[in-house]
Amino acid sequence: MDISEKFISKETVYNGSFIEVEKRKYELCDGREAYRDIVVHPSACAVVAVDNNMNIYLVKQYRAAFDRILLEIPAGKMDAGEEPIECVRRELEEETGLRAGKFTHLSSIAVSPGFCTEIIHIYLAQNLEQGNTNPDEDEHLLVSKMRLEAARKNVFNGTFSDAKTISGVLLAYEYLNIKP
Amino acid sequence: MDISEKFISKETVYNGSFIEVEKRKYELCDGREAYRDIVVHPSACAVVAVDNNMNIYLVKQYRAAFDRILLEIPAGKMDAGEEPIECVRRELEEETGLRAGKFTHLSSIAVSPGFCTEIIHIYLAQNLEQGNTNPDEDEHLLVSKMRLEAARKNVFNGTFSDAKTISGVLLAYEYLNIKP
Repeated sequence: MDISEKFISKETVYNGSFIEVEKRKYELCDGREAYRDIVVHPSACAVVAVDNNMNIYLVKQYRAAFDRILLEIPAGKMDAGEEPIECVRRELEEETGLRAGKFTHLSSIAVSPGFCTEIIHIYLAQNLEQGNTNPDEDEHLLVSKMRLEAARKNVFNGTFSDAKTISGVLLAYEYLNIKP
Repeated sequence: MDISEKFISKETVYNGSFIEVEKRKYELCDGREAYRDIVVHPSACAVVAVDNNMNIYLVKQYRAAFDRILLEIPAGKMDAGEEPIECVRRELEEETGLRAGKFTHLSSIAVSPGFCTEIIHIYLAQNLEQGNTNPDEDEHLLVSKMRLEAARKNVFNGTFSDAKTISGVLLAYEYLNIKP
């Protein structure tokens, strides 16, 4: 059974600072037509940076969508024309001041495939060295560390609230244990 | 250091079938002002349904945002006034025909806290019984099963592409192993 849909047309209904919203029309597999709102996002990278003592680096940041401060792994949107590996290297140094000798791609996750094109490319960073922090002008961050083992236990207790951090912590833990 | 931001004002710039887009103005912690585009979403539930043989249930669905068919755990948006536990019970039966004797909340993940209010409440479902499928009119799904152990290995190889599925599989695996 073919469950694909055929794109018919689209209208850009909002053009924001980094997202666009498209109202798209599709032909469904049963022949009917339906509209789908799609948020077009430039995608992003996130990084589980693990030091030699198996601590990971975290950033606290105010998130307007929830009106509270969340504890997350470092991450940021991809610039136009930027490759994921360039983005993750840049974001890690901007947000934490760290440089890494080794990056490993863990996964690329669609955050909400029902309506949004954003993919977050999640990397493991190892062989860390101190560089210089340089956050974006409208970003205010507090950096902290936590044992990876503690972070893994904290995925169930509300310490972390977002998809990339919970996925990243569990993926890094699995990766470092099953492929040592 | 207080890194919170103060809400000043907002304008609804798009009102879609289930998302709204708000352009909000904030006072940053350094006193400057900035605009933030926020996608307001009704939030959703997702479910890792595990049978007595440690298989999990998956659904294939066409995703317009990526123009391809993705393999995901069953999930769906919350109806107005609906509690997460009601939503997850409804979505599991609509999409797979299954009823579960036991639901356990694993985590609630913000899919992309930088711009979107969507939270996905992820549950484990056990003690499964067959009911009746009843998908939404514009949803066309194919249901399949996979061993949880195989799913855990597949988080690294691209079999799954979305945040709730990768988080859900790893959370369920951790939960069933560390709290048996």
